[in-house]
Amino acid sequence: MTRSVVKYIGPMTRWAPGAAGRLHDAALELFLENGFAATTVPQIAERAGLTTRSFFRYFADKREVLFTGEDELPRVVARMFDEADHGLTPMQMVDRGFRQIVFPRLESFRDEIAVRRKIVDTDEGLRERELRKLTILQDAAKQALLRRGLTPIDAEIMARLAVAMYDTTLELWLAQGTRTRLDDVLDTVFDAFGRMATPV
Amino acid sequence: MTRSVVKYIGPMTRWAPGAAGRLHDAALELFLENGFAATTVPQIAERAGLTTRSFFRYFADKREVLFTGEDELPRVVARMFDEADHGLTPMQMVDRGFRQIVFPRLESFRDEIAVRRKIVDTDEGLRERELRKLTILQDAAKQALLRRGLTPIDAEIMARLAVAMYDTTLELWLAQGTRTRLDDVLDTVFDAFGRMATPV
Repeated sequence: MTRSVVKYIGPMTRWAPGAAGRLHDAALELFLENGFAATTVPQIAERAGLTTRSFFRYFADKREVLFTGEDELPRVVARMFDEADHGLTPMQMVDRGFRQIVFPRLESFRDEIAVRRKIVDTDEGLRERELRKLTILQDAAKQALLRRGLTPIDAEIMARLAVAMYDTTLELWLAQGTRTRLDDVLDTVFDAFGRMATPV
Repeated sequence: MTRSVVKYIGPMTRWAPGAAGRLHDAALELFLENGFAATTVPQIAERAGLTTRSFFRYFADKREVLFTGEDELPRVVARMFDEADHGLTPMQMVDRGFRQIVFPRLESFRDEIAVRRKIVDTDEGLRERELRKLTILQDAAKQALLRRGLTPIDAEIMARLAVAMYDTTLELWLAQGTRTRLDDVLDTVFDAFGRMATPV
């Protein structure tokens, strides 16, 4: 890989050249080369030029390398809603939050995000963990919407819709080989959403 | 427990008194009594009056006891769409499919479904596995919607909406201590959905 593989959630900065960053990049290289299941922590540590003990100072296990930075997520999601203008509908908050707060953090990391997703897609356990990550996002969105005065059921539904739109947009964006912009993909998703969501 | 704990997905019949059924019920009893993590396969086999070897003839591990019957799910979801009248919108297919095909299979198993969900909620790994089950449902819905001529993106969005509505309805239904009907809970969910899904 020509540039450092990074996590795409969280602070959205490329990994510093410190120990955690080297371990992270070494792990992703090995996952790609030999597969997630076949990669061991000692191999990751060796590739990074560090000890196994160092590895466990930063990560609980090899799986968590792919989910580090997740703790930041609830804060990013909270910002989307907490900073939204008060005249906006919940759906408008989501739309603007995605475009102004979330997408700018993702747009320039397309290759790294694609690498990470490629690895996650190879392993059932990783896919399950990834789904769990989305429910963490969903819970954060629900809490933020409750703070904005929505009823529990409205907050629950809106949070689910927001996560579904986010995940679909990201998936479509990665499926397109070109440098399509996330904003344009979201337009497509909103369009499909409008067609499908017509109440009974 | 006064009556047999059953799986609520799949054929929706109570477990036969055969070996698989006894192992299933023994497992759920132990999960409730001692927790999922503390329960071992030998304990489950002993409680069921069977050998560990018998256990592994039916289940890959103790976790899978809670997800057995899952193979039936795609067929149930496919029926919802494949048997729907051709004049219906996708959302109408979902609405009628829930009420006519899915809910009748759940309505009389409220206590058993609640027990299972209670166990799943105690363990992070089980929660992840449960989310994976929902994506199996989602994939089946997407495939069925593609067969009905929807575009891939419309099918993807509609499948996600359907699963979100299903899961929210089930959650709300279980949260209500009384014998509320699933049909009435779905009305509430559709209502919230209509309020939230207004396009930007």
